[in-house]
Amino acid sequence: MASKAIILVCDGMADRRCLALGGLTPLQAARPKSFDWIASRGECGLMDPISPGVPPGSDTAHLAILGYDPYKHYTGRGAFEALGAGIELEPNDVAFRCNFATVNDEGIVVDRRAGRISNEDAEALSESLNDIRLVRNSDIKIMFKHTVEHRGVLVLRGEGLSRFVSDVDPHKVGVKFLYSKPLTDSPASKKTADVLNEFVETSRRVLAEHEINKRRVKCGQPPANVVLPRGAGTLPMLEKLPTKFGIRAAVIAGGAVYKGVCKAAGFEVLDVKGATGTVDTDLNAKMRAAVSAIKSYDLVFLHVKATDVVSHDRNPVKKVEIISRISEAFSTIISEVNLEDTCITITSDHTTPSELGEHTGDPVPVALYAPGARYGGTERFDEISCASGTLGRIRGVDLMPIIMNFLGKVPMYGE
Amino acid sequence: MASKAIILVCDGMADRRCLALGGLTPLQAARPKSFDWIASRGECGLMDPISPGVPPGSDTAHLAILGYDPYKHYTGRGAFEALGAGIELEPNDVAFRCNFATVNDEGIVVDRRAGRISNEDAEALSESLNDIRLVRNSDIKIMFKHTVEHRGVLVLRGEGLSRFVSDVDPHKVGVKFLYSKPLTDSPASKKTADVLNEFVETSRRVLAEHEINKRRVKCGQPPANVVLPRGAGTLPMLEKLPTKFGIRAAVIAGGAVYKGVCKAAGFEVLDVKGATGTVDTDLNAKMRAAVSAIKSYDLVFLHVKATDVVSHDRNPVKKVEIISRISEAFSTIISEVNLEDTCITITSDHTTPSELGEHTGDPVPVALYAPGARYGGTERFDEISCASGTLGRIRGVDLMPIIMNFLGKVPMYGE
Repeated sequence: MASKAIILVCDGMADRRCLALGGLTPLQAARPKSFDWIASRGECGLMDPISPGVPPGSDTAHLAILGYDPYKHYTGRGAFEALGAGIELEPNDVAFRCNFATVNDEGIVVDRRAGRISNEDAEALSESLNDIRLVRNSDIKIMFKHTVEHRGVLVLRGEGLSRFVSDVDPHKVGVKFLYSKPLTDSPASKKTADVLNEFVETSRRVLAEHEINKRRVKCGQPPANVVLPRGAGTLPMLEKLPTKFGIRAAVIAGGAVYKGVCKAAGFEVLDVKGATGTVDTDLNAKMRAAVSAIKSYDLVFLHVKATDVVSHDRNPVKKVEIISRISEAFSTIISEVNLEDTCITITSDHTTPSELGEHTGDPVPVALYAPGARYGGTERFDEISCASGTLGRIRGVDLMPIIMNFLGKVPMYGE
Repeated sequence: MASKAIILVCDGMADRRCLALGGLTPLQAARPKSFDWIASRGECGLMDPISPGVPPGSDTAHLAILGYDPYKHYTGRGAFEALGAGIELEPNDVAFRCNFATVNDEGIVVDRRAGRISNEDAEALSESLNDIRLVRNSDIKIMFKHTVEHRGVLVLRGEGLSRFVSDVDPHKVGVKFLYSKPLTDSPASKKTADVLNEFVETSRRVLAEHEINKRRVKCGQPPANVVLPRGAGTLPMLEKLPTKFGIRAAVIAGGAVYKGVCKAAGFEVLDVKGATGTVDTDLNAKMRAAVSAIKSYDLVFLHVKATDVVSHDRNPVKKVEIISRISEAFSTIISEVNLEDTCITITSDHTTPSELGEHTGDPVPVALYAPGARYGGTERFDEISCASGTLGRIRGVDLMPIIMNFLGKVPMYGE
């Protein structure tokens, strides 16, 4: 019986057959050695992160993989972004992902990322928005925190708020930014939409006068003259994994949302220098951090975003290269952990076909190595080979109980 | 289309790869001929008795295999023990599994089985406890029945009782036996805990003065000076299988709980001399009884406990031997029933890895022979071979409809 578990999730790694790869999937083309090692000694299968055919979001896929039915527990993306950004959310808070963007005089969005504004500029602007005072809604406290590049998090704190409000972000350029609208008839929805609109109005005045923006205009850079909130969310009330299974759990990830989902599930967030959530992330640093963390934690969740980034960029060839690099870095884990005491799972949170550039509802391959596991018959880690493995076809919510079963941590039901 | 079905459930037969067996599972090592015969001519797959990763109890696993969702229908183990012991439970009764045990003067349990007390002694003591009169709770009727060795069943009958009370049995030696506590705030919970505690107090006085115990002490045997109730349960309200599918069903089993679950589901319990529920059970007698029973019943459920017993004893080598013996005895069924009219299913109720000695949440192999069934590709009945079979990965609750479908007994849904 193993006492430790490592889960590697390569975001959007699962794919379809690609014309650019001679009809192979990127995993088939890459033939990643360390992943194949796990597949040939592990239980393999396909996993529907949410449900067959349903394209998962990053947040819902991770909720499911951690064992929470997303249809029951999902309360919007914003909360995970806020948690991942290190904000201690309270149960009544409503949180939003935000972009710094550029609008023209008519309020039409001309750049959703304000010219891919630098971390330094966005950080300075964010400070001026944090703790802004509203007039119409003076009872609501505003918190604003910069995360990465043009991205930030807005949290509204106070009584009588709701996450059922529409986005300010129009999700495209060439149209006006939106006024948030209540999505239900409740006073809380109406109030929250009004708070959000007042925040956007107020923040526009602050940003217009900010010296950073004055400098940006002088230098010919697009000013970050609006904040576009979207994805309202509240803190989900999850039974924490450490409580549920009696374990210590840690997450290593670059992106805020992955840290946030894990934090909501009771994981400790380990910060690794060089883990950026982009293609230039320091894979070796993350693997070394995982090897180190598994000495102090029972479960280490390791997330790599790069596979999804190149998939959204519609670059199957680059995806093959990225998969090979991750697999090579991952060999550190196989060679350094105690294989007689560790369950190692490799999977993906959703399929992102790299010739389509968006999430789809295809299942993802999963391979699970554990002492005593009933491996057999599968030699490679890819979407086709894993389909005939001993795990069969499982659901995302089943993965965590299956892993915890190998650690003897799932309570018996019945006598 | 078959008109008859036999289900063989070998308790805890499913296993993991065992170091002591050179990395094979006991089923792989045993290569049981008659099971392989069914696998090579039947639909094979893996089955999660309850849900992936969840270790099933004996009671909940059997509820599921008979087609009842245990999360909806499970009402505690005690009721099944009572039914299996031949007590006609009424809807308001609360039943408990009990051990005769030995406590010292301070009430500390020194032997949970009272020196593995003989059936004769336990039977005589049980008679003195049956129909005992309580004083504080004089409205409650007490029924006590001995089953096997140190085991018995207690039934409380009367108004206002509840199964939500804690065990008196501390489940280990070296500690005091417990006072039952209400597990909810309801008056029924409080009353039931009080009844149970009064029963234990009263029974201690009866047992202390009993001549069997006086004789045991004289002979240097540990006295059975306490009864330790546990596993409170009430009669589950199940739609009976004979009603649901229009069939006559019978069960052949040694252990009380298996007979009890089947009885709750509407099976007739066939008593077979020599069916003990232990490793020395008369396998041939059970197989002959099944061959005989299938002439009068449409469905015969045949349970063998020995595989689980040796698994809890952590004896993979003995498990291989037991599996071979069961398979050999089972060949009687294959050779004597009408294969053109009989569906034969072999499976296990849960995995008990014989190098761990406890139930785990791994799926179990299942093989289903039936005229017309879509067999193919699987040659052996084991955890790895069955994984790639034509049944795929199913849930326990799906097994009974799948079998009844081969008997044409599942009503069409829709038109």
